[in-house]
Amino acid sequence: MPTYFHVDGDLLPAEEATVSVRDRGFMYGDAAFETLRAYGGDVFEWAAHAGRLARTCETLGLDHGVPDEDLNRRVAETLAANDLDDAYVRLSITRGVQPGTLAPRPEVDPTVVVIVKPLPRGGVEGSPVWSGPADAKIVETRRIPNEAVPAAAKTHNYVNGILARLELEGEDEALLLDVDGRLTEGTVSNLFFVIDVTLHTPGLDGPVLPGVTRKEVLDLAEAAGVPVETGEYEPEALLAADEAFLTNTTWEVRPVGFVDGEAIGDGEGAGEADTESGPVTADLARRFDELVEDRHY
Amino acid sequence: MPTYFHVDGDLLPAEEATVSVRDRGFMYGDAAFETLRAYGGDVFEWAAHAGRLARTCETLGLDHGVPDEDLNRRVAETLAANDLDDAYVRLSITRGVQPGTLAPRPEVDPTVVVIVKPLPRGGVEGSPVWSGPADAKIVETRRIPNEAVPAAAKTHNYVNGILARLELEGEDEALLLDVDGRLTEGTVSNLFFVIDVTLHTPGLDGPVLPGVTRKEVLDLAEAAGVPVETGEYEPEALLAADEAFLTNTTWEVRPVGFVDGEAIGDGEGAGEADTESGPVTADLARRFDELVEDRHY
Repeated sequence: MPTYFHVDGDLLPAEEATVSVRDRGFMYGDAAFETLRAYGGDVFEWAAHAGRLARTCETLGLDHGVPDEDLNRRVAETLAANDLDDAYVRLSITRGVQPGTLAPRPEVDPTVVVIVKPLPRGGVEGSPVWSGPADAKIVETRRIPNEAVPAAAKTHNYVNGILARLELEGEDEALLLDVDGRLTEGTVSNLFFVIDVTLHTPGLDGPVLPGVTRKEVLDLAEAAGVPVETGEYEPEALLAADEAFLTNTTWEVRPVGFVDGEAIGDGEGAGEADTESGPVTADLARRFDELVEDRHY
Repeated sequence: MPTYFHVDGDLLPAEEATVSVRDRGFMYGDAAFETLRAYGGDVFEWAAHAGRLARTCETLGLDHGVPDEDLNRRVAETLAANDLDDAYVRLSITRGVQPGTLAPRPEVDPTVVVIVKPLPRGGVEGSPVWSGPADAKIVETRRIPNEAVPAAAKTHNYVNGILARLELEGEDEALLLDVDGRLTEGTVSNLFFVIDVTLHTPGLDGPVLPGVTRKEVLDLAEAAGVPVETGEYEPEALLAADEAFLTNTTWEVRPVGFVDGEAIGDGEGAGEADTESGPVTADLARRFDELVEDRHY
């Protein structure tokens, strides 16, 4: 069975799914997007993703005029056309083709693109999509400051993350510091770490994406009675942490085994860095799995 | 006559010139490009543009394997297919479609795209492509620091410039400060200004594109005996300047009439801000026109 993508209102076989070379999404990365995950045929936290997509479009001044329900319908049609229940979904809205060069025009004929691929879920009983705890590296490339491009805007501009990934030498994820040397996030993930049973994560005042999974995990921690602190942290805090994990829509909760080659949680009370999660990470991962199962199956 | 673009080795009518929605140039802006100008059928400063394109690809770790002569041939074929002598040309190389998500793979099947459009030249006797001196605004959006994404890398990531342009209210160009508040460049242009007959321009240690026209103008200034200084400048230096101008491949040398609503060079000895260039600007613009005519006609 061929794969089908949704482009500009039509379902097309993947090899025919294209955009104009003059589309601003191609020329400038002038597009908003969301990575979604479908569980049992439904998108996890659609409202949260749709809300963030709308905020990205607002930042870009991209008044596309496509209602949320229409976007949701296109995603559902693409999942159905590919007979997928558990899937990775990428939903993009570009400013389309416009006359002139860089300056965007207010009249927009947007291009809406939905890409999907199978993504079996692990869940409470199964295995996660990642093969093991993450091996992370703090790279030299710094996260773009909010005053240059707000991190909350999820656009097709990913060269910052690509440059960070290019510094890896076999690790799974690059962690970026801000220009002042503080922890921010991974190239495709939010960062959490546990010190003395308190969960820490860099705050949204810094150049940090307000991740949908990040928010779910913070809510789950609150429900579980885990103390939470957000703020600005030096890399040393992470290296000395008892546990660490990364979150995103596809990884869900992924433990971090190593940072810069040093095992995280190598001290008393923590699990083996390369094989197990620490207790707070394991508890939150289990609660996340249960939440998905409660809602979707 | 239809317009033809060059995509992945083929000349195609513009409406059929597309890239896959999975092309990394579309998904991530993971592409290097150059804006070129053809005069009399030949590309101005091809070697300088090809060299910068190669350096961008090196920064991106994009080993595309397409020789410079082959790129040049595709540009020439596109100009010929459209019967264009004086033209705007945009040459892009993307990392193509790759498996996985953000992490780039070393094995690349690149996508090479050439877009053209007519761009009559002004020259010594004619009118320039711009309609008058630029009305510029120093915007709140800051230029991305080099440690996040090197400004010398010319990629399809233009959200920083788009956000800057969105702040304009009828002006022609947005000028960006760096995160420390110093002058850098416009969204599509390099910035020069004249104080007491000395030409000033922000240095390449800051987040400033090494513009091909910038370099030509610096060489022309040297030949003309105009003292040149590069460095780090506060916006006040620009506002107090006797003259200012912007350079890029399509504008060539474009005088600046106003910055933040204040006329530049309003004092003695300068031209009328909104109608004429100051003497240093006019001299360099004339020398640039002569250089183009000498080489291309």
